[in-house]
Amino acid sequence: MQTIIISIGDELIGGASVDTNSAYLSARLAERGIVAVRHVTVGDDANRITQAIIGAAAEAELVIITGGLGPTLDDLTRRALADAMGVELIEDAHSAKRIKAFFDRIGRTMKPSNLTQAMIPAGAEAMDNDCGTAPGIAARLGRVDVFALPGPPNEMTEMFERQVAPRLGVAGALARRVLHAFGTGESDIGERIADLMARDANPKVGTTAKGGIISIRIVATGQTPADTDAAAENTANEIRHRLGELIFGQDEQTLASVVGDALKDCGMTLATAESCTGGMIGQMMTETPGASEYFLGGIVAYANSAKTATLNVPAEVIESHGAVSEQVADTMARGVREKFGADFALSVTGIAGPDGGSDDKPVGLVYIALSGPSSSKVHRHIFSGARDIIRRRAALTTINHLRLALTESEGRASKNKSHQPSS
Amino acid sequence: MQTIIISIGDELIGGASVDTNSAYLSARLAERGIVAVRHVTVGDDANRITQAIIGAAAEAELVIITGGLGPTLDDLTRRALADAMGVELIEDAHSAKRIKAFFDRIGRTMKPSNLTQAMIPAGAEAMDNDCGTAPGIAARLGRVDVFALPGPPNEMTEMFERQVAPRLGVAGALARRVLHAFGTGESDIGERIADLMARDANPKVGTTAKGGIISIRIVATGQTPADTDAAAENTANEIRHRLGELIFGQDEQTLASVVGDALKDCGMTLATAESCTGGMIGQMMTETPGASEYFLGGIVAYANSAKTATLNVPAEVIESHGAVSEQVADTMARGVREKFGADFALSVTGIAGPDGGSDDKPVGLVYIALSGPSSSKVHRHIFSGARDIIRRRAALTTINHLRLALTESEGRASKNKSHQPSS
Repeated sequence: MQTIIISIGDELIGGASVDTNSAYLSARLAERGIVAVRHVTVGDDANRITQAIIGAAAEAELVIITGGLGPTLDDLTRRALADAMGVELIEDAHSAKRIKAFFDRIGRTMKPSNLTQAMIPAGAEAMDNDCGTAPGIAARLGRVDVFALPGPPNEMTEMFERQVAPRLGVAGALARRVLHAFGTGESDIGERIADLMARDANPKVGTTAKGGIISIRIVATGQTPADTDAAAENTANEIRHRLGELIFGQDEQTLASVVGDALKDCGMTLATAESCTGGMIGQMMTETPGASEYFLGGIVAYANSAKTATLNVPAEVIESHGAVSEQVADTMARGVREKFGADFALSVTGIAGPDGGSDDKPVGLVYIALSGPSSSKVHRHIFSGARDIIRRRAALTTINHLRLALTESEGRASKNKSHQPSS
Repeated sequence: MQTIIISIGDELIGGASVDTNSAYLSARLAERGIVAVRHVTVGDDANRITQAIIGAAAEAELVIITGGLGPTLDDLTRRALADAMGVELIEDAHSAKRIKAFFDRIGRTMKPSNLTQAMIPAGAEAMDNDCGTAPGIAARLGRVDVFALPGPPNEMTEMFERQVAPRLGVAGALARRVLHAFGTGESDIGERIADLMARDANPKVGTTAKGGIISIRIVATGQTPADTDAAAENTANEIRHRLGELIFGQDEQTLASVVGDALKDCGMTLATAESCTGGMIGQMMTETPGASEYFLGGIVAYANSAKTATLNVPAEVIESHGAVSEQVADTMARGVREKFGADFALSVTGIAGPDGGSDDKPVGLVYIALSGPSSSKVHRHIFSGARDIIRRRAALTTINHLRLALTESEGRASKNKSHQPSS
């Protein structure tokens, strides 16, 4: 089965924003055996959108449109799709009700323009939007299925996964795993599993890299769910075996959620002392619901005076070694651990750039300290890239150090148990 | 002048990689008054590529192709372009020589397949690639200019800037502004500037929404830079006049960078006390280089015990009013202001969800306190959406409250100045 994906918006065609929706949809559809043959992007121009829809429906059995469902005058997908279908737009009562309820819930007055979002081509079906106000549209154009989804990626993916994907057939059975790794580069991982990544292999294995996290996608296709599931699991296990502790989790897991689970398992708590990351580590640790079970909080000591005032880092230590030093990292971690009464503390101090570097201490130099019940350790890194890249990589690396330490002590605890004489 | 941009590659159409080249080219071409009307992505399929080129040349005066110029069997742009032109491929001696020299220089043996990259459609011109082996192609298809560029973004941008851009005329002039607003919804803004958003207006005005930030794009086309610049500025001023303090900045400015500038201007400092946002506000404030001039740091008091231990929020206050209350927000702000010795302090405490809500205090309830030299104020909000949406909206709203307070006191200071008798 073939599909053509149309993305709509002046911000896309003008180059202000990069279209990520089409790639997402193509990848998810490919996993169901539906092959994208073309991506088309047009601006907020009703005629061009209509032409794109008609052209796509002449070639493919499935057409997916993203964007243009907002409430303003430049949102033209509803009109353009109705024109392509040769029908009128009519107000969908259910959608109108949901939009009114949305405004009631947030305590704002709804205006008439918001109700334009409830207009659906006659004969088409509205799809509820659980993340925003614009319903999607499920329609038929001759013998072709057409789905119109919102442009904002979080709204689009939620609606696609929950409402479009289940409506699509899957040719045979399909099983998927996504393993996540951190600690080396994509090409290194690619080399370690090169034989598994042949283009015509089944399961198909591919890698993507984002901010230092390497995601390894495994897709097995076959006749039955049992077959495909076993095949995907085999390949996943082989990859886990080869990559060892580089793999931190799979599917929805993040470095932070995995560390959270490990802390929960041993009933321990964490506090953080951040400088150049500004609060990013705390933000990452608290992304996961229920983080209050193990994450007590932290201190962002951005100014050097704050390091002294709030973390008891002696001013002389900063003066003699500099704010970005092993000594300051260590003192920050011990200080916040004591202040919060946490079992573990992580600290990070570094030079995020673009200014502040020197020959001695270049941009990207970061010290990370981990202070725990039995020991303290400081790690030194030099990250490269722009300010936001360095900050993000420092935050993830900090959390990863705790992950590795918890894994290691877990391993030692099991060994100790297995060495105990059977009673 | 109109252009259509074609990007080629299985990794694009299959969704493994996101196409960034088309957005880059569209933006750069727009600056020269050349408007992209469509982006098309196809896979490594000679027929589809040929069809895409022919279709594009029938509609636009300029066609730019990226990708498919590599040395392997799936690199088909040369053949597809020659087919579209109805000519043969012939080896370009100059390009062949450069490719051989490249392999000599890196000390590797060249294979015959590498020379396929020197094959150029008869009548077309090769463009030297200074970052890789594949020459680009400059060709004519009827009265249409066609440029084929390498796929890897660094090779593409270098060749475009150095060899394509200079060959393009500048068709008239184009001026752009992007204004950013926060504090109301996209539909509300759309209504306030509806008359400016007519589809055929010049300047063209469009809006996009992302995480509560509404961006208003203004694009003016005309004969001369002076004309278009004046037109864009006029429209921008009209929008600023109508939206008042809803507009916080333009172009690269963010809420955090604008607040940072305001703090710098009055030589004042800021500290933050965060609960549900986990550190996100600190992270946003420190995104901007040089933030240490005004941002001292903050405390993430995620656990209630931490609110008492680190911010001096009395345990009885948390017990009687709850952690998510006006009283706790106020005490957190005053506490961190004192601890850091900051001029201003912002605090936020709320229920990010999905759990933790009640009839009394629903998910999304957030109290934000601003404590300053002369006063303190607490704001109450109810945000809706998933956990990450609520946290992000809370963080931005918190920063926005400081922005509005600084703008207001700035206004009062000017008024006071203007009321002084001239001496």
